[in-house]
Amino acid sequence: MQKLKAGIIGGGFMARTHTAAARAAGADVVGLVSSSPDRSTAAAEPLGVTPASSVEELIERSDVVHVCSPNARHAEHVRAVLRAGRHVICEKPLAVDAAEAAELAELAESAGVVASVPFVYRFHPMARQARSETSAGRLGRLLTVRGAYLQDWLLDAEESNWRVDPQVSGRSRAFGDIGSHLVDLLEFITGERIVRLSAATTIAHPQRGGAEVVTEDAAALTVELTGGALGSLMVSQVNAGRKNQLTLEVSGAEGSVFFDQEHPDELWLGRAAGSVTIARDSAVLDEDAARLSLVPSGHPMGYLDAFAAFARDTYAQIGGERPAGLPTFADGARANRIIDAVLESAQSGRWVDVTPSERPVPART
Amino acid sequence: MQKLKAGIIGGGFMARTHTAAARAAGADVVGLVSSSPDRSTAAAEPLGVTPASSVEELIERSDVVHVCSPNARHAEHVRAVLRAGRHVICEKPLAVDAAEAAELAELAESAGVVASVPFVYRFHPMARQARSETSAGRLGRLLTVRGAYLQDWLLDAEESNWRVDPQVSGRSRAFGDIGSHLVDLLEFITGERIVRLSAATTIAHPQRGGAEVVTEDAAALTVELTGGALGSLMVSQVNAGRKNQLTLEVSGAEGSVFFDQEHPDELWLGRAAGSVTIARDSAVLDEDAARLSLVPSGHPMGYLDAFAAFARDTYAQIGGERPAGLPTFADGARANRIIDAVLESAQSGRWVDVTPSERPVPART
Amino acid sequence: MQKLKAGIIGGGFMARTHTAAARAAGADVVGLVSSSPDRSTAAAEPLGVTPASSVEELIERSDVVHVCSPNARHAEHVRAVLRAGRHVICEKPLAVDAAEAAELAELAESAGVVASVPFVYRFHPMARQARSETSAGRLGRLLTVRGAYLQDWLLDAEESNWRVDPQVSGRSRAFGDIGSHLVDLLEFITGERIVRLSAATTIAHPQRGGAEVVTEDAAALTVELTGGALGSLMVSQVNAGRKNQLTLEVSGAEGSVFFDQEHPDELWLGRAAGSVTIARDSAVLDEDAARLSLVPSGHPMGYLDAFAAFARDTYAQIGGERPAGLPTFADGARANRIIDAVLESAQSGRWVDVTPSERPVPART
Amino acid sequence: MQKLKAGIIGGGFMARTHTAAARAAGADVVGLVSSSPDRSTAAAEPLGVTPASSVEELIERSDVVHVCSPNARHAEHVRAVLRAGRHVICEKPLAVDAAEAAELAELAESAGVVASVPFVYRFHPMARQARSETSAGRLGRLLTVRGAYLQDWLLDAEESNWRVDPQVSGRSRAFGDIGSHLVDLLEFITGERIVRLSAATTIAHPQRGGAEVVTEDAAALTVELTGGALGSLMVSQVNAGRKNQLTLEVSGAEGSVFFDQEHPDELWLGRAAGSVTIARDSAVLDEDAARLSLVPSGHPMGYLDAFAAFARDTYAQIGGERPAGLPTFADGARANRIIDAVLESAQSGRWVDVTPSERPVPART
Repeated sequence: MQKLKAGIIGGGFMARTHTAAARAAGADVVGLVSSSPDRSTAAAEPLGVTPASSVEELIERSDVVHVCSPNARHAEHVRAVLRAGRHVICEKPLAVDAAEAAELAELAESAGVVASVPFVYRFHPMARQARSETSAGRLGRLLTVRGAYLQDWLLDAEESNWRVDPQVSGRSRAFGDIGSHLVDLLEFITGERIVRLSAATTIAHPQRGGAEVVTEDAAALTVELTGGALGSLMVSQVNAGRKNQLTLEVSGAEGSVFFDQEHPDELWLGRAAGSVTIARDSAVLDEDAARLSLVPSGHPMGYLDAFAAFARDTYAQIGGERPAGLPTFADGARANRIIDAVLESAQSGRWVDVTPSERPVPART
Repeated sequence: MQKLKAGIIGGGFMARTHTAAARAAGADVVGLVSSSPDRSTAAAEPLGVTPASSVEELIERSDVVHVCSPNARHAEHVRAVLRAGRHVICEKPLAVDAAEAAELAELAESAGVVASVPFVYRFHPMARQARSETSAGRLGRLLTVRGAYLQDWLLDAEESNWRVDPQVSGRSRAFGDIGSHLVDLLEFITGERIVRLSAATTIAHPQRGGAEVVTEDAAALTVELTGGALGSLMVSQVNAGRKNQLTLEVSGAEGSVFFDQEHPDELWLGRAAGSVTIARDSAVLDEDAARLSLVPSGHPMGYLDAFAAFARDTYAQIGGERPAGLPTFADGARANRIIDAVLESAQSGRWVDVTPSERPVPART
Repeated sequence: MQKLKAGIIGGGFMARTHTAAARAAGADVVGLVSSSPDRSTAAAEPLGVTPASSVEELIERSDVVHVCSPNARHAEHVRAVLRAGRHVICEKPLAVDAAEAAELAELAESAGVVASVPFVYRFHPMARQARSETSAGRLGRLLTVRGAYLQDWLLDAEESNWRVDPQVSGRSRAFGDIGSHLVDLLEFITGERIVRLSAATTIAHPQRGGAEVVTEDAAALTVELTGGALGSLMVSQVNAGRKNQLTLEVSGAEGSVFFDQEHPDELWLGRAAGSVTIARDSAVLDEDAARLSLVPSGHPMGYLDAFAAFARDTYAQIGGERPAGLPTFADGARANRIIDAVLESAQSGRWVDVTPSERPVPART
Repeated sequence: MQKLKAGIIGGGFMARTHTAAARAAGADVVGLVSSSPDRSTAAAEPLGVTPASSVEELIERSDVVHVCSPNARHAEHVRAVLRAGRHVICEKPLAVDAAEAAELAELAESAGVVASVPFVYRFHPMARQARSETSAGRLGRLLTVRGAYLQDWLLDAEESNWRVDPQVSGRSRAFGDIGSHLVDLLEFITGERIVRLSAATTIAHPQRGGAEVVTEDAAALTVELTGGALGSLMVSQVNAGRKNQLTLEVSGAEGSVFFDQEHPDELWLGRAAGSVTIARDSAVLDEDAARLSLVPSGHPMGYLDAFAAFARDTYAQIGGERPAGLPTFADGARANRIIDAVLESAQSGRWVDVTPSERPVPART
C-alpha cells in the first residue's frame, strides 16, 4: 500500500495541525515550506518533516498540498498547485474576496483534482447527526436558527498579528476567519442557503500595534434562509472568556437541534415534549455520524480527531471514494460570497441579497 | 403589624402566581376579580381568596392592586386603580403601544403611588450580581451583548389563545410578551440603553384556530447600545424544546458575564485568563445580590422566589423604603417603546432609532 | 375556609424556613417560641409572628406544631405536642437514637394525629419521577446505587455550633444531620430497604471551639439493599466547595436514574442506548411528579418550593387526604435506626445488619 | 531522524488504539501479531500495518512492543519482549495477580528497559492540573476522596467476551479492568497510597453465554489513605447509561478538585468561598499540565490525545528524557496488589491492609 505524499505550505499553528492530521490520516508528510528558508527549517524540524527549498519543489514532491499560508497568498499558492496537477487543501477563507474565490473554485474544477477546504467542524460526529436530523425531516420545516462563534484572543488592544493587516488577511477579519466556519456549518446542517442578510460590525480598538485598525472584531447578523427561516448570528474575537465557542441551534416545526463545538460529543434534541441531550454513541447515531465515531461512547473525541477525519475524507476522495460531506472549493467560495455580503450590509445599513453566482453552486455532497 | 391588602385582577396563571408572591411577601390577598362572576369564583376559590363582584369593589378593598388582565385591558384597569389612589402592579407589556404606556407612566407619577411592573428576572440574585459586575466596572467598556428568550408553547399550529388576537394582546406578540423581559434585563444589567436597532420578525403558521395570524412568533434584532456596543438578540415562542430559556451575555474590554434564567443560581464570569462559573453564595456576592439570596448556597432558588422578591420590594417601596432595582412603570413604558421600534424596523427593513421620549426616561433606581 | 393554625418551636434557620413553608401552604403561623423569651421575640418579630411565652402556650394556640429545636430536645417537645393531641412536624433526625425515635413513632401512632418529618427532598418533582421510574419497573431489578450528601460549612476548624456537642445533637453529627436525608431519599426512590451496611467515619479536626470533637465530619458506607443491590454512599460536611450536593444514582438491569438536588429540575435517565436528561415538564412526568410541578417547565423550582410542598401535603393529610409519599415519624425512626447502625459499624469495623424493629416498619405511603 | 519501530501484540480495539497512538507519537508501526495468522492479517491490514508471523518475529522487528493481548497472556508476552531486550508497553491489568505483576516489574527493572502501562487518564492535562493542585498544597491536608468508574457494556446478560472467563482475564473482572485505572488515578492525583480498604462486590447475572459467572460486575470500596483521608469508590460495568464515566473528587482542608474523564477539558476547584470550574487553558495551568495541552483552549482534547501523549512520553523516556508522570510497571504492579486486596476483602467481609511489597514501591516519577 503506497502512502499518499502530503506537502505543507505555511509555518504556523495550522501547519502543525495539518501535519498531525495528515499523519493520522495515513499520509507521509514529505515536506514543508514557509516564508523563508530559515522559517521553513524552524517550522519543519520540530515536526520531523524535511523542509523544502521552494513552493515549487514542495509541490513537486507531493501528491497533495496543504495550503496554510496567510489568506492573501492562498490564490498564488493554490494556482501553483493546480498548475502542477496536484490535489489541494486550502485553509479558509479560501480567498480575500468572492471573485477570487470563485475563480479558484473554477480552476480546481477544470483541473479535475480534489480541492477541499478544512471546514473541520463538519467532522464532529454530532454535527453530522445534527445534519441528519434536519435532512431526515425530523425537525420539520425550519423556523429559526441561532448561532455564534466567539473567541477572545484579540481582546487585548496590544494583541496584533498578520490577520489585523487587510493587505495580508483581507477586508474582513473576524467574520472571514471564523464567521466563515459558522455560515458553512449553518448551511451544512440546515441543508438550506442564506438568501439575504443584514449585518453590523464593530471594531473594539481603533489601533493595534501602532496601526489603525480597519477590519472588524465582531459582527452581528440577521439572516433569512431559503425556506424562509429567520436567523440570528454573532461572531466575535473580543468576547472575554470565550475561547472557541461555536454554537448553533436549528429549530423547526417538529423539533430542534443544538450543537456546541466545545462539547462536541453531545447534541441536544429539542421537542415540544421530551427534549433530550444525546451522547455520541454509535448505537443511536445515523450512518454518517456513526462512520465518524471512531472510539466508543464515553471516550471523548476532539478537535484533532475532527481535523484528522477531514484529512482522511479528502484522501479517500483522492483515492476515488465519495465520502459524504467533504467541504470543497465550491463551499469555500460560498463562504467568501457571504463574507462580502456581510461587509456590504454593514457599510450600507441595508439588507443584502446573497445572490447566486453565475454558475449555480454545486449541490452539497 | 398591619398586613398590606392586595387585590388581584385576572384569573389565569399570572393571577395564581401573583397571589402566591403576594402571600410570600407578607400581604393578605383580599380579593380577586376576573372577566365574569363565574370566572372570578372559579379562579379565586382554589386559591382560598374571596372573589370580588367588580373591579371597583376589588380596588376598594385593596391597598395595592395586581393587574393581571389581558394586555388590552391594562390601561383601563390601571387608570381605575390610580383614580382610587391605590398602589399598582401591572403585568408586562404595560400597554399595547408606547404612547399608551407613556401615558400610564405619567399618570402613576402624578398619582404619587408606587407603580411597578413584574420584570421579575431582575430579582434572581445572580442577575443582580451580573449587574453589579457591570456597574462596578469589572467588565470594562462594553463591546458586545448577546441574548435570547426562547419558548415553544406556541409551536403547534393548533395552539391559540388570547395573545394571538391583536385586539386583546396588541400588535406585537412574542416580542411584547417575552422580548419585553429580555430588553428590560439587558438594559438593567448593562446600565446602558438601546439607541437603535434593526429587526426582522417571522410568523410560523399563517393561521391559528381558524383565524389569520398577524403577529410575530419570533424576532431577531441587532442593537446598538449607548456606549457603542453591538448586540444580537433573538426571541421566539416556537423554538421546539426551549421552555423558558432567557439567556444574556454581556462582554466588555475586561470581562464578560453570562446569565441563564433556567439555571439562575449560577453566573459565568468570562476573563481572558481564568474564566469561572460562580454559584449563588452570599460569601462572594455583592451587596444587592446577597440581599436577595434568602437561602444558603446549594439550596436552589427559583421562579417563585424571584416573583416573591419582586412583590416584597414593591411592598417595601409602598412602606417607604427604596429597594434597589425595582422595575417601575417608567421601565414598563421603556419596554413598550422598544417593542414599537422592533415592529417599525421589521416593517421597513431599516435601522430605527429608539428615540428618547419627550420626557427623559427617569434614571434607573 | 378556616386556615390551619401552625406554631413553631425553635428560633434558627429552620424556624424561618418552616414559617415560610407554612404560609405558602396556606396556614396561619400563630406563634413561635425559642429557648428564652428574648430569643423568642428576636426570632418571631422579623417574621411577623407573635412570640409565645412557653411551649405549652404555643401548643395551646396551634392545630399543628413544627418542632425545630435542637435534636436532643425533640423528644420532649414532641411528647408535649402529642399529649395535647395536636398534629406535629418534627425536624430530622427525629431523635438522638433509634430507641427514642421508635418510641416517638409509636406515641404518634397511638395519638392518632398526623406526625411528619421534613425529608423535603422527596418533594422535588424529579425525585418523585425517579421514584416512579423505579416503582414502575422501568429500571428493572436494581443492581447498584451510588449517592452522596456533601457540604462544607464545617470545613473550618474554627467553625462550631450546637451540632458539634453530642449532648445537644446526639452521637452522630454529619450522618445524623444530612446522612438521614440521603438514606431516606435512597429508600424512598428505590422502594427497597438497606439490609446491612459497612461504614467508616472520620473527624476532620480534633478540636473545635476549644472542645474535643467526638462526632464525625464525614462517613463512607457500603450498603446492601433488600433485593441484593450493592450501594456506595458518602456524607461529608467538610468537602470544600460543596454547599449542599445531594446526589443519587440508582441503576438496574434495564436502566438508571440520577438525581442532583442542586439541579432539581432535571433527571438523567440512563439506558444502554439512548440515555437522556429530561427536564421537569408536566407533559412527560408521571402523575405524582406532575402533581408537585406547580409552575411551567423552564421556570425553576427550588428548595422553598419543596419545603412548601411538604407542608402542604402534611396539612392535606391533616385535612383527611392521603397524599402520596408523606414522610412520617416511622420514616424518621427508620433513619435513626440506620444512623445507629453506621456508628456501630464504624466502631467495630464490621458489617452490621439493619435489623427490622420489633414492630414492622409500616409500608411506605 | 530515525523513527522508533513499534510492534503490536493483539488484534482488538486496544491494538487499533495503540497503533494510532504510536503513529501520532511519531513511531513507525512495523508489525502486528494476533492469535493466529488469519487474525493477524485481518487486524493488521485495515490499519496499513504488516502482519507478523509470530511474536518472536514481531519482537525482532521492533524497538518497542505494545502488549495488547488478553490479560492471562501478558506475562508470557512481556517476558519474551524483555528477554529480547526490547522496551515494552503492557496493557492493564499488568498481570492476573499481584505476585505475577511484581515479578514482571522486577524483570523489567533488571532488563534496564523502559516498561510502561497505559494508565492513560493521567495524560489529560486537567488530571495533571488536579495532581499539581494537590502536590502544591493548594488543597491542604486531604480529608476525603470520592471516585467511580462506571460503564454499561456488560449490562445485558447476553453480553459476554473473554473478560468474563477467569482463565483468560483473571480472578477480578470489573475491578481489574477499570478499577485499576481508578486507583491508579487516585494515587497519582493525591500523591498518597491506599493503606487499607473494605470492599464488596456483586455479580449482575449468574450466567453469561451459558457459563456460570464467577467474576464481579461491580465493586464498592471504602478506603483509607496514607494521610488518614477516608475514601469511597465504586466500579461497575453494568451501570445503565454510563459509558465510561471515570470521576474523582479529592477534598482537603483548604480546597477540593473534581475531575471527570468524560469532560476532560474542565476541572472544578472547590473552595469554601468562590469555587470555580476552570477550562484547559495554558494561561492558567501549571507546567506539567500546560506541557500536555497541545491545542488552544476551546479546541477539545480527548481520549486519543491522551493515549498519544502516553505513547509520546514512553518514547521520550526511551530516548533518554524523564517526562513527569509516566506510569511504569511498578505502577501496574501496584494496581494488581490493590485488585487482590479488593477480592480478599469482598470474600472475608473485613478490612484488608494493602501491605507494601517486600521491595518498596518506587517513588512516583
